[in-house]
Amino acid sequence: MGTATGSAPSAESASRRKAGRPRGELLNRSKIAGAALRFVGDRGYDALTMSALAKALGVSASALYNHVESKQEVLQLVQDRVMDDVDCSGFASQPLGEAVRRWAGSYRDVFARHAPLVPVIAVLPVSGSPRTLQMYEQVAAGFARAGWDQQRIVPAIVALESFIFGSALDAVAPKDIFNVDHAVDDVPAFAGAVASQRATGDDPAQDAFEYGLDALVRGLLAGAA
Amino acid sequence: MGTATGSAPSAESASRRKAGRPRGELLNRSKIAGAALRFVGDRGYDALTMSALAKALGVSASALYNHVESKQEVLQLVQDRVMDDVDCSGFASQPLGEAVRRWAGSYRDVFARHAPLVPVIAVLPVSGSPRTLQMYEQVAAGFARAGWDQQRIVPAIVALESFIFGSALDAVAPKDIFNVDHAVDDVPAFAGAVASQRATGDDPAQDAFEYGLDALVRGLLAGAA
Repeated sequence: MGTATGSAPSAESASRRKAGRPRGELLNRSKIAGAALRFVGDRGYDALTMSALAKALGVSASALYNHVESKQEVLQLVQDRVMDDVDCSGFASQPLGEAVRRWAGSYRDVFARHAPLVPVIAVLPVSGSPRTLQMYEQVAAGFARAGWDQQRIVPAIVALESFIFGSALDAVAPKDIFNVDHAVDDVPAFAGAVASQRATGDDPAQDAFEYGLDALVRGLLAGAA
Repeated sequence: MGTATGSAPSAESASRRKAGRPRGELLNRSKIAGAALRFVGDRGYDALTMSALAKALGVSASALYNHVESKQEVLQLVQDRVMDDVDCSGFASQPLGEAVRRWAGSYRDVFARHAPLVPVIAVLPVSGSPRTLQMYEQVAAGFARAGWDQQRIVPAIVALESFIFGSALDAVAPKDIFNVDHAVDDVPAFAGAVASQRATGDDPAQDAFEYGLDALVRGLLAGAA
């Protein structure tokens, strides 16, 4: 795994550089993360390959591989950037239930915008992601301040994250994912429930997320009391 | 999208078939689903490509494409097979909370064995998957029998599924995903919570799933009461 050089090239080395030579010596992991985030914002995750990212950076693929080993590692860098947008501010001051709702809502919104990261982050060791670690620290400290049984803090966080990750995937599902108009006779109870829910609002994913989050938070707090 | 021919070749057409000619006329979507399920069981989802699957079936890639348009469609066929293993039996007879726990536990176990399906199924319209539809029918009927407000049945199912899908991804995460031994000073509250939980058992994913499922079911039932 490469490390950032950090230093600018000397005037001498710059002058010796041939015109058009990839400026690989200016590359570092922070620049790669920023470029990858812009790339997926413009062109989506499906288009993100190591060679396409190298091209976007104006470097050769081998220069890119000097700093990151794989697309998986690029996604880790993106994930750590994205985590910065998750709102943990409630844990310092709000009652635990409110803090969890604020955090979970922003966490789900962030990963709904970056749904292809969900299967990556769900199995990614946190140790290599400093901002992600800081998020967990704020959340764990908030639970501890609220007097939560210490053995139950990690299970509570993991349960909430499982719900958040699943909800982020659901947020990008087609709105008619439960269209069963052709099968009403085969699945009458389900078709009735779908029709009834459809009549209540036009954002079923948001509706289900808020409903489930309320239930999960209520259940966690009731179990801890 | 191709359809299954269903009919066996006549003796005449069989006799005219050249030796070694791909037996594409015997192919159908059911056989493709079975072969794909065996394939991912033996070699994993990463190895599953259309050409590798065609080879496993002993047919040409173009013969396979006569029946399924894409790897995505193969995954849909696999998903519908896999859904058969989800245990919905409680909804016919058990109290709702017990039925939900049984269903959710088996659903999570099934998709922990097929984690690469999770991002596929989470955004997949249910209309093309007859067994999946039957699962939803049993679940919706169980909620209705328990007197659940009809408008809340689909949000409750979606919330539970979001938690189940996220938990299935967590089940395949490395056990040391929260190893922060190198960063105890940076994240003391989180490191303390991780150490405390580690002391309680050796299957943190199962632990978090059961803890969260209890809380979610408790919260849903309390909200509906």
